[in-house]
Amino acid sequence: MSVEVICVGTELLLGEIVNTNAQYLAQELASLGIPHYHQSVVGDNRKRLKQVIDIALNRGASILIFTGGLGPTPDDLTTATIADYFQTPLVENQEVLADIVKKFADRGIIMTPNNRQQAFLPEGAQVLPNRTGTAPGIIWHPRPDLLILTFPGVPSEMTSMWQATAVPYLQKLGWGKEIIYSHTLRFRGISEATLATKVAKFFDLSTPTVAPYVSKGEVRLRISAKATSLLEAKGIIEPVAQEIKEIAGLDYFGSDEDTLSSIVGNLLLLAGETLSVAESCTGGGLGEMISETAGSSAYFYGGVIAYSNQVKINLLDVNPATIEQYGAVSPQVALEMARGVTKKLKTTWGISITGIAGPGGGTPTKPVGLVYIGIAGPEEILTSFEFKFGEQRERSTIRYLSSCSALDQFRRKLITRNKL
Amino acid sequence: MSVEVICVGTELLLGEIVNTNAQYLAQELASLGIPHYHQSVVGDNRKRLKQVIDIALNRGASILIFTGGLGPTPDDLTTATIADYFQTPLVENQEVLADIVKKFADRGIIMTPNNRQQAFLPEGAQVLPNRTGTAPGIIWHPRPDLLILTFPGVPSEMTSMWQATAVPYLQKLGWGKEIIYSHTLRFRGISEATLATKVAKFFDLSTPTVAPYVSKGEVRLRISAKATSLLEAKGIIEPVAQEIKEIAGLDYFGSDEDTLSSIVGNLLLLAGETLSVAESCTGGGLGEMISETAGSSAYFYGGVIAYSNQVKINLLDVNPATIEQYGAVSPQVALEMARGVTKKLKTTWGISITGIAGPGGGTPTKPVGLVYIGIAGPEEILTSFEFKFGEQRERSTIRYLSSCSALDQFRRKLITRNKL
Repeated sequence: MSVEVICVGTELLLGEIVNTNAQYLAQELASLGIPHYHQSVVGDNRKRLKQVIDIALNRGASILIFTGGLGPTPDDLTTATIADYFQTPLVENQEVLADIVKKFADRGIIMTPNNRQQAFLPEGAQVLPNRTGTAPGIIWHPRPDLLILTFPGVPSEMTSMWQATAVPYLQKLGWGKEIIYSHTLRFRGISEATLATKVAKFFDLSTPTVAPYVSKGEVRLRISAKATSLLEAKGIIEPVAQEIKEIAGLDYFGSDEDTLSSIVGNLLLLAGETLSVAESCTGGGLGEMISETAGSSAYFYGGVIAYSNQVKINLLDVNPATIEQYGAVSPQVALEMARGVTKKLKTTWGISITGIAGPGGGTPTKPVGLVYIGIAGPEEILTSFEFKFGEQRERSTIRYLSSCSALDQFRRKLITRNKL
Repeated sequence: MSVEVICVGTELLLGEIVNTNAQYLAQELASLGIPHYHQSVVGDNRKRLKQVIDIALNRGASILIFTGGLGPTPDDLTTATIADYFQTPLVENQEVLADIVKKFADRGIIMTPNNRQQAFLPEGAQVLPNRTGTAPGIIWHPRPDLLILTFPGVPSEMTSMWQATAVPYLQKLGWGKEIIYSHTLRFRGISEATLATKVAKFFDLSTPTVAPYVSKGEVRLRISAKATSLLEAKGIIEPVAQEIKEIAGLDYFGSDEDTLSSIVGNLLLLAGETLSVAESCTGGGLGEMISETAGSSAYFYGGVIAYSNQVKINLLDVNPATIEQYGAVSPQVALEMARGVTKKLKTTWGISITGIAGPGGGTPTKPVGLVYIGIAGPEEILTSFEFKFGEQRERSTIRYLSSCSALDQFRRKLITRNKL
C-alpha cells in the first residue's frame, strides 16, 4: 500500500522549471500518513510514460498521482496514455466540455477546437474539477485495488484541486486517520546557527521532532508529531512550541501561514491605526507586501513610490538640502520620507525605504546592499535603521529583504512601544 | 545511451526541500547534449535504491548521476549501496581521509568517528573532490559501458563539484560536442490553445523541435535543436523563431531572459521617455515589477500607491464626483489616475491600475477579478482597458496578472503608436 508521484513534462527534464509540485504533494502525503517511497519524472512521451506506470505498479503502488500533460496541445498526453495503458476508451464528458466553453466565454476569449481534447476522459473516470483553469483531472479506479489521480502541471491549479477534491476523497478512503502534523514557527532577525544554539535541546526529542531550516531570509523550526488526531498532535506540539517562543522572544514573528504582512495588519487593526509607505529602492514592493493581506484597505492607505529624488522632494517634502548634504541613501532622508508620507496621507504610521539595490550605484562608503528604513508614528516616534545586506547579493534579494526588514522593524515597534 | 538522475533522500519524499538539484542537473545535461529521459527520487533505503538502479540499467542508462546520501550519518547510504549493487568492496581512501581530517582541523571542530565513513569508496572508483564540504563524490566505471557519478545533496557543493570535475570529465568522454540548445519565445494576451492553433505546423518538426507550455500567465514556445556548436544550433532555430514571431505579431513580447519589465524599459530608453504609476489594487506591485530591471531609474520616476480613495483624490487629483458616479473600479477613475500621476510626477507616460483583487469586495456588476488599466501619454493619449481575470482566481494571482497586463498593454502602445 503506497503512493507514487509521477511528474510528466519535458520542461522538467530540460530543467526549465523546478519541480515544486513534487514537493507540495510529498508534504501533503506525509500529513495524510500515506507511504510514499518513489517519485518519477518523465518527458512527454507515451512509451516512456507507460513504462513508468508499469514500474510503479510492479513496485506495488496502489495510488498513482500524475502532474502535468493535461493541456490542449499535442504533447499533452497524460490522460490518453493512462487510458491506453488500461485499454480503456476515452469519452467526451459533456459537463467538462460545458465548463470549458463557459470559462472561455467568461474571459471573452475564443475557444479553439484543440481545447475540446481536455474534455475527453477515460470511460468510468470521475472528474477532478479544476475551478480556475480549463484542464480538469481525473479520479479513476481502473482496477479495484488501484486509484489514479491526475492534476495539471500549473502549481496554483494543482494545489487548489488537491485541497478541494483529492484530500476529502482520500480521507473518505480511510487515509489521514494517523496523521503527521507539523507546526512551523517562523523567526526573523536571528541566524539559523544562533537560533539552533538557543534551542539545541529540542533537536534530540523524538516526540515531537524539531528541525530547523532556512527559507527566504527567515529561519523556521518545524515541530512534527504523529498522532491519531489533529487534537492529539497539537497537544504534543503545543508545550514545545510555547517554550521555544519564550526563548526566542521578539525574533519569533508568527506560525504556519502567518506572514509579516498579516501579523502587522492584525496589530494595526487591534490598535485602530493606519499606515502608509514611502519607497525608493523597493519601487513598490513594500506596499505590495502590505496589501497582499486581504482586507488591508482597513489600515493601509497607500503611499508614494519615490524612485527619483524629484519625487522625494515634490511629493514627500524631503528637503533638497538633506539630499545634497547626506545623499538620497541616508538615515536623514529615510526619516524625512517617513515623516512626509505620514503627513501627506494622513496616517498614524509611515514606513520608508531608501537604499542601493545594485548591481550598479555602489560606492566605497555606500556599497550595494546598504539600506535605510525610517518609521514615523504617533507621539513623535521617528526612528531609522541601517541594514547591510551585502554587495554579493542579487538585486531582487536585496529588495525583498529590504521590504521584509522594514515590516519586521515596524512589527517590533508596534509590539514594544506599549511596553516601554 | 542516456543518463538518469537519481536523487536520494527521505527529506525529498517528505517534501521538506524542493529538488533544485534535479533542475540544475537537467539544465546542465541538456547543454552537454546528453539524452535525459528519467529522474527518480528515492528515500534513504538500501533495497529501494538498489531497485531504482536496476530499473535505470534495464531502461538502458549508461550514466547514473546520484545526489544525496554521502554524509556521515547512518542514513547516508548511497556509496555503500552502489558498491554493494556491483558487488565491489569499499576501501578507505587515505587522501580523502586526510582531507576530511584537515577540514575539521581548519574549522576548529572535533571530528567524530562517523566522519570516517565518508572516506570509504568502492574499489576502483576515483574521487570526485569536494572543495567546500567534507563528503566527496565518486567517478566510477563499474563496467566499461557504465559511468557512475555521485554528489552530496547540498546544492552549493553539488554544483561546484559538477562544474569543477564532472563537466571536464564528461567532455573528455566526448560529450558536449553535440549540444542541445533551446531558445524560448514568450507570449502574452493569447491562450496556449490559440497560439498552438496558429503555429501548429511547427509542432511536427524534428529539427528544431517546437513545444508549448504555460507559465504564470504567459505562454512559451521552446524551440530546441541538437547541433555540434551553439552557432549551428542558433542557425537551425533562428528561421523558425523568426517565422513564429511574425505569425504571433504583438502577442510575442520577448525571448529567454527578457521580461515585460526589461522590454518596456528598453523601449522607453530608446524613446528617451519616462514613466510613472498609479496603483490601487496592486498596492505597489506594478512599480516593483518595473523597478526590478537594473537601471530603471533612467526612465522610472516612481508613482503613487492610491489604495484608499482619499489618496486617489488628494495625491492624484481624481475628481471625487467621478468616484461617486462610476465607482473607484471604473475606466473613468483609471483614466484620471493615469493622467493625474503623469502630471504630478512630470513623466511622459503614466500607467494606472484599479480593480477588485478579492476575495471580498465583489458585486454582481463588479465581480472579483474585474480590473481597469489606464494609460496616459504624449499627444493626448489617454486610454483604458478592461480585464476580467475571473472570480475563482486567487488574490495574489489577480494582482500579479493585473501588473503584467498593465505592462503588456503599455508595451503594445509603445510599439504601435509610431505605426499608426
